[in-house]
Amino acid sequence: MNGNNLDALFRPSSVALIGASSKELSIGNVIIKNLLHYGFKGPVYPINPRVDEIRGLKAYPSILDIPGPVDLVHIVIPPPFVPEQVENCGKKGVKAIIINTAGFKEMGEEGQALEDDFLARAKKYGIRIFGPNCQGAINSDPEFRSYCNFTFTFFKSGYISVVAQSGGVGAVIMQALYDMDIGMRMYASNGNASDVSIPEIIRYYGNDEQTRAIVLYVESLDDPAEFMEIAREVTAKKPILAMTAGTTDKGAEASRSHIGGLAGSISMDVVFKKTGILSFENQEDMCNAAEAFACQPVPKGKRVGIITNTGGPSVIAIDELDRNGLQIPPLSEKAKTELKKTMFGSASIANPLDVVATAGAPQFKSAFEVMMNEKDVDSVYVNYVTPPFVDNESVAREFVAAAEKFDKPIVCNYMTDKKKWEGTTKILKEGSIPCFDFAETAAKALASLVRYHEIRSAVRGKVPVFSGIEKAKVAEIIANATADGKKLLTAADAYTLLESYGIPVAGWNVVSSAGEAVKAAEKLGYPLVVKADSEQIIHKSDVGGVVLNISSDEELEAVVTKMQNSFEVDDLKFFIQQQKPGGTELIIGAKKEEGLGHLIMFGLGGVFVEVFKDVVFNIAPLTDTEAAAMPNDIKATVLLDDFRGKKAVDKQKIVDIILRLSQLVTDHPDIKELDINPVLATHEEVCAVDARIIL
Amino acid sequence: MNGNNLDALFRPSSVALIGASSKELSIGNVIIKNLLHYGFKGPVYPINPRVDEIRGLKAYPSILDIPGPVDLVHIVIPPPFVPEQVENCGKKGVKAIIINTAGFKEMGEEGQALEDDFLARAKKYGIRIFGPNCQGAINSDPEFRSYCNFTFTFFKSGYISVVAQSGGVGAVIMQALYDMDIGMRMYASNGNASDVSIPEIIRYYGNDEQTRAIVLYVESLDDPAEFMEIAREVTAKKPILAMTAGTTDKGAEASRSHIGGLAGSISMDVVFKKTGILSFENQEDMCNAAEAFACQPVPKGKRVGIITNTGGPSVIAIDELDRNGLQIPPLSEKAKTELKKTMFGSASIANPLDVVATAGAPQFKSAFEVMMNEKDVDSVYVNYVTPPFVDNESVAREFVAAAEKFDKPIVCNYMTDKKKWEGTTKILKEGSIPCFDFAETAAKALASLVRYHEIRSAVRGKVPVFSGIEKAKVAEIIANATADGKKLLTAADAYTLLESYGIPVAGWNVVSSAGEAVKAAEKLGYPLVVKADSEQIIHKSDVGGVVLNISSDEELEAVVTKMQNSFEVDDLKFFIQQQKPGGTELIIGAKKEEGLGHLIMFGLGGVFVEVFKDVVFNIAPLTDTEAAAMPNDIKATVLLDDFRGKKAVDKQKIVDIILRLSQLVTDHPDIKELDINPVLATHEEVCAVDARIIL
Repeated sequence: MNGNNLDALFRPSSVALIGASSKELSIGNVIIKNLLHYGFKGPVYPINPRVDEIRGLKAYPSILDIPGPVDLVHIVIPPPFVPEQVENCGKKGVKAIIINTAGFKEMGEEGQALEDDFLARAKKYGIRIFGPNCQGAINSDPEFRSYCNFTFTFFKSGYISVVAQSGGVGAVIMQALYDMDIGMRMYASNGNASDVSIPEIIRYYGNDEQTRAIVLYVESLDDPAEFMEIAREVTAKKPILAMTAGTTDKGAEASRSHIGGLAGSISMDVVFKKTGILSFENQEDMCNAAEAFACQPVPKGKRVGIITNTGGPSVIAIDELDRNGLQIPPLSEKAKTELKKTMFGSASIANPLDVVATAGAPQFKSAFEVMMNEKDVDSVYVNYVTPPFVDNESVAREFVAAAEKFDKPIVCNYMTDKKKWEGTTKILKEGSIPCFDFAETAAKALASLVRYHEIRSAVRGKVPVFSGIEKAKVAEIIANATADGKKLLTAADAYTLLESYGIPVAGWNVVSSAGEAVKAAEKLGYPLVVKADSEQIIHKSDVGGVVLNISSDEELEAVVTKMQNSFEVDDLKFFIQQQKPGGTELIIGAKKEEGLGHLIMFGLGGVFVEVFKDVVFNIAPLTDTEAAAMPNDIKATVLLDDFRGKKAVDKQKIVDIILRLSQLVTDHPDIKELDINPVLATHEEVCAVDARIIL
Repeated sequence: MNGNNLDALFRPSSVALIGASSKELSIGNVIIKNLLHYGFKGPVYPINPRVDEIRGLKAYPSILDIPGPVDLVHIVIPPPFVPEQVENCGKKGVKAIIINTAGFKEMGEEGQALEDDFLARAKKYGIRIFGPNCQGAINSDPEFRSYCNFTFTFFKSGYISVVAQSGGVGAVIMQALYDMDIGMRMYASNGNASDVSIPEIIRYYGNDEQTRAIVLYVESLDDPAEFMEIAREVTAKKPILAMTAGTTDKGAEASRSHIGGLAGSISMDVVFKKTGILSFENQEDMCNAAEAFACQPVPKGKRVGIITNTGGPSVIAIDELDRNGLQIPPLSEKAKTELKKTMFGSASIANPLDVVATAGAPQFKSAFEVMMNEKDVDSVYVNYVTPPFVDNESVAREFVAAAEKFDKPIVCNYMTDKKKWEGTTKILKEGSIPCFDFAETAAKALASLVRYHEIRSAVRGKVPVFSGIEKAKVAEIIANATADGKKLLTAADAYTLLESYGIPVAGWNVVSSAGEAVKAAEKLGYPLVVKADSEQIIHKSDVGGVVLNISSDEELEAVVTKMQNSFEVDDLKFFIQQQKPGGTELIIGAKKEEGLGHLIMFGLGGVFVEVFKDVVFNIAPLTDTEAAAMPNDIKATVLLDDFRGKKAVDKQKIVDIILRLSQLVTDHPDIKELDINPVLATHEEVCAVDARIIL
């Protein structure tokens, strides 16, 4: 047992139920039934002032009438009566309350007021509240057997703990694992999460030694920072398998080229990535992976040895392993020599190793020994059909022996009629061999083990702190703009911000006359761009307020004079900037996400961002490792290398800009959105040529 | 019964087994056991000269000793003895033989000779051969119950027929459908397919009225043309659900920009697409879709009405439906009014319609009636959890009533413990409601029904025949090149071929001197490109043999003279071509696939093909509809429309080139590979500027 304050929830010594009912199909009856059915180790106290007993248990009129101490209370009565009962629980010395009742903040103001009321009372007494509008919590630990939930899946004790924001999805996952005959350790679905939060539950599971893997379903984060801190702490110890939903963004069809449009609904995936959570696209893949984590060790690499006693499924397995980035190395000569001694003549001595359908225990034993001893093999994948002419139970025992003897994981595509080969199935199950019905699912489960290996062994890197930064200057610009009620910074301010953090910017100046312009041009050099700089001119390009390719003093003077004549505004200035000769267009940006900090985006500009959405995100502050990965993680990363006669761009300079931008927005959280689009990159220079900053 | 000549295989009146054995675990015993266990309606004759009876059946020394007629024979004896037994079968008047024995053409020359031998004998007697090296065939029709197979899955009678090239994969599919409690109609896995082919089996299933959907696993096609003809014929009548494997192409990493490299292993997917076969990426999705097809009608559109009695799974369902291109239209006002009368107060009257967990039969009945009557709804998706406080059996009866009353399909994400809610499960199952364990799988199964609707309702179009084509001229060029032993056509020949089929080409000429060049330039106009034209100069660009941007007679003369001086070859000529000012780079190509005809490719050129592999394929001859779809089917299709100030390119001209190319390669099958890369497209002109043709 650990000292975390959720013990009263998951390890209660006694449970009471306020709103207990004699009505068979009511929640107030079902929870009592569940506690009894699951074999809860402590006393259960139904509370109902109108009856004497429920399901054979003495019922009490009030929580205050219970003779002994009460750790945990369920409340299932209507919302208006809840605060008073919480007060009573406080007087009784209750440690935690699961409020199953719905109808609080999700129903508007009145509900919110009731929620605030019971929370204040709970706080006064130091009671933890779970819910409201929730299912509850379950612990299969034989010492407790606390099924404080109104669901119907009585899982056996195991190593997977589940927490789900949606009780419906939680129930599906619980049932799926149950149907797969996978044990679970704990389960929780906390509904409105008014007090006990999902991150707290994750931490609790993280500290529980019997929990080998955590399965999480989450749609939104109340406190992303708390979530990230805890998730990172836990994923260093054990895998978190997670899924989110509500992510399809129907508006994403529209062409977008700034971070505000692109970030859309990707934040959750980025949070998962940043914190080392294994992300899944569907519940089934997640449950299959959970089975693998519950049974097998994490491999030390992505090289797979395949053993098969049938052909076609092997082809499918190789496709799926390859799709998931796993490798199938050739067998060593030593392995081949060894296998030639033991395999049947028709066997195919290679990787995949086809032991053929007639292979029995001696062939499988040898296949496992040789594969496991290969230094280039990190895990073993088996396609195993149960031929009617083979002693399959002794084959199954070889699976188990190999799993026990070696520290490399085994997954099995087990092709059989599980009823007919009940004995074989039992041996594999009891020997903790994860068995899947399809080659694809077995391969994907193995790939998840490998993904966790990669997460756990990845270098996290450090967040660099650049020196020579003019932090105060930036703070002043932002303060002034805020004081002036400006949301969009002027070009001059935007470029000054970037320069203050050492981000290279195409040379620029702001001038008031043709004479000043020519003088500025002397320093900047031609070609130049001139933009009319006035808050009163919107859509500058459309009204002739942007002129490119100015290559002489005469042209420059003419352009400035023409603008002076055509724009009748009183604040007219001229933004003059070096025109870069070309390079690869990049887009680097940042966007503030409430509670999360800033998302940093990197991608190729132009059509690549607009059509292919070929951008990557991470969360500031970025470590050097995270920043360095970004240019390599876009699909079109080859365009940054030597390509079609164009020299590779200077990636280190790109990474430097990304890191400086990360520091800039971290230092100045008032920046809501920052787009440098484009950054022009060549093999010698990387330079911002347009920027937009929104406060 | 139909007249197709596979009746003896799938509808045998009697079955004999040559190589029958008393040994429990031998194939020669298992097949007898299977026939008896499955309740085969005709006599079974074990043949074994050394015993008197097997499994209680009288054994005969030879096929010739059997008193009555024999339709179908299994042969399981070693290869060398097979031809003689086939001869005996011929004498006996046997109609079909399943040769389970392995060790024929797959084992090399000797095996091939034996295979040729038995095939010749079978042909002589008009016997159809199934196999060798195969599992066999099964028919669950109560009139036959012929389990002529050594597998172990005794499926109930149903509407899905399966044919698998790999017996291993076939067995997995059979077992998966069995585990899902889905009946099957027929099953076949024909191994080496020396005579009876997969297309023949597909046609047989196509003609079988009780088969509602065909499930196919295929790795390669012996005769793609036969396959395509039959597949197209059958998919017009009923869906074919198919999967292939062995498709990951590890070499695909390398950057490729010609059709030879890109086509790689995509042919099977293109064949599926062209013939209207529903293609799947994994066995499980395919089996789930089969369940939907077996139970439900095909919807008339992609608009889905969602009914749910739980929250989270609904979010997941919407994500998955949206990912699959399905739509969730808003409810009509009429529907809302109706539902307000019947739903509980906490229900959410919208699409998705959340009837809430407490909804019973009356609420579900109303939900179904209203959704089914919505004219904007083509199918109904239900998330249904079985709350312990609801009469779930009466709810299930409403599913069945709705399915019977309306002609729109229902799929259900059924979240329950199937043992605990056995009665409910049985009602849904017997009422043909396809039930899935996860929101994602239910949504994907529904999406498959919609895909088949789209296939069946798609306009196939016509293959246009262009007039004014100089077919004979092209034939002559190809014949001459072939006579000269040339594989790669000269630029002049390549452009002449394109022009002969009316494909616009940037103006060109071949000249021998500076004087001729200037004369040619008069007609072509500047700017021009000059390429040294000699078979002896390889990698022209690298040695100064290509000069761009020539804009005057002087430059032209200088370039030609310089090349004359620098290249010491005796066949030096000069290929002069108009240099187009720009446009969108496209790549249009054709590649011959043995037995299949030509693959036609379309894509955007440059980085789009090299980095994003953004190309589409189809098989020539293309119909107008197929060709018109190609520019719309690439990911970056928006780049062909008005984009970033660039006018839309002339798509009709692109389609015209695709169709002319299709006719060119169809008329001249000697063309192995043809790449037009790039084609330059603007809003007014689409024109080939480089081409490469390989014979």
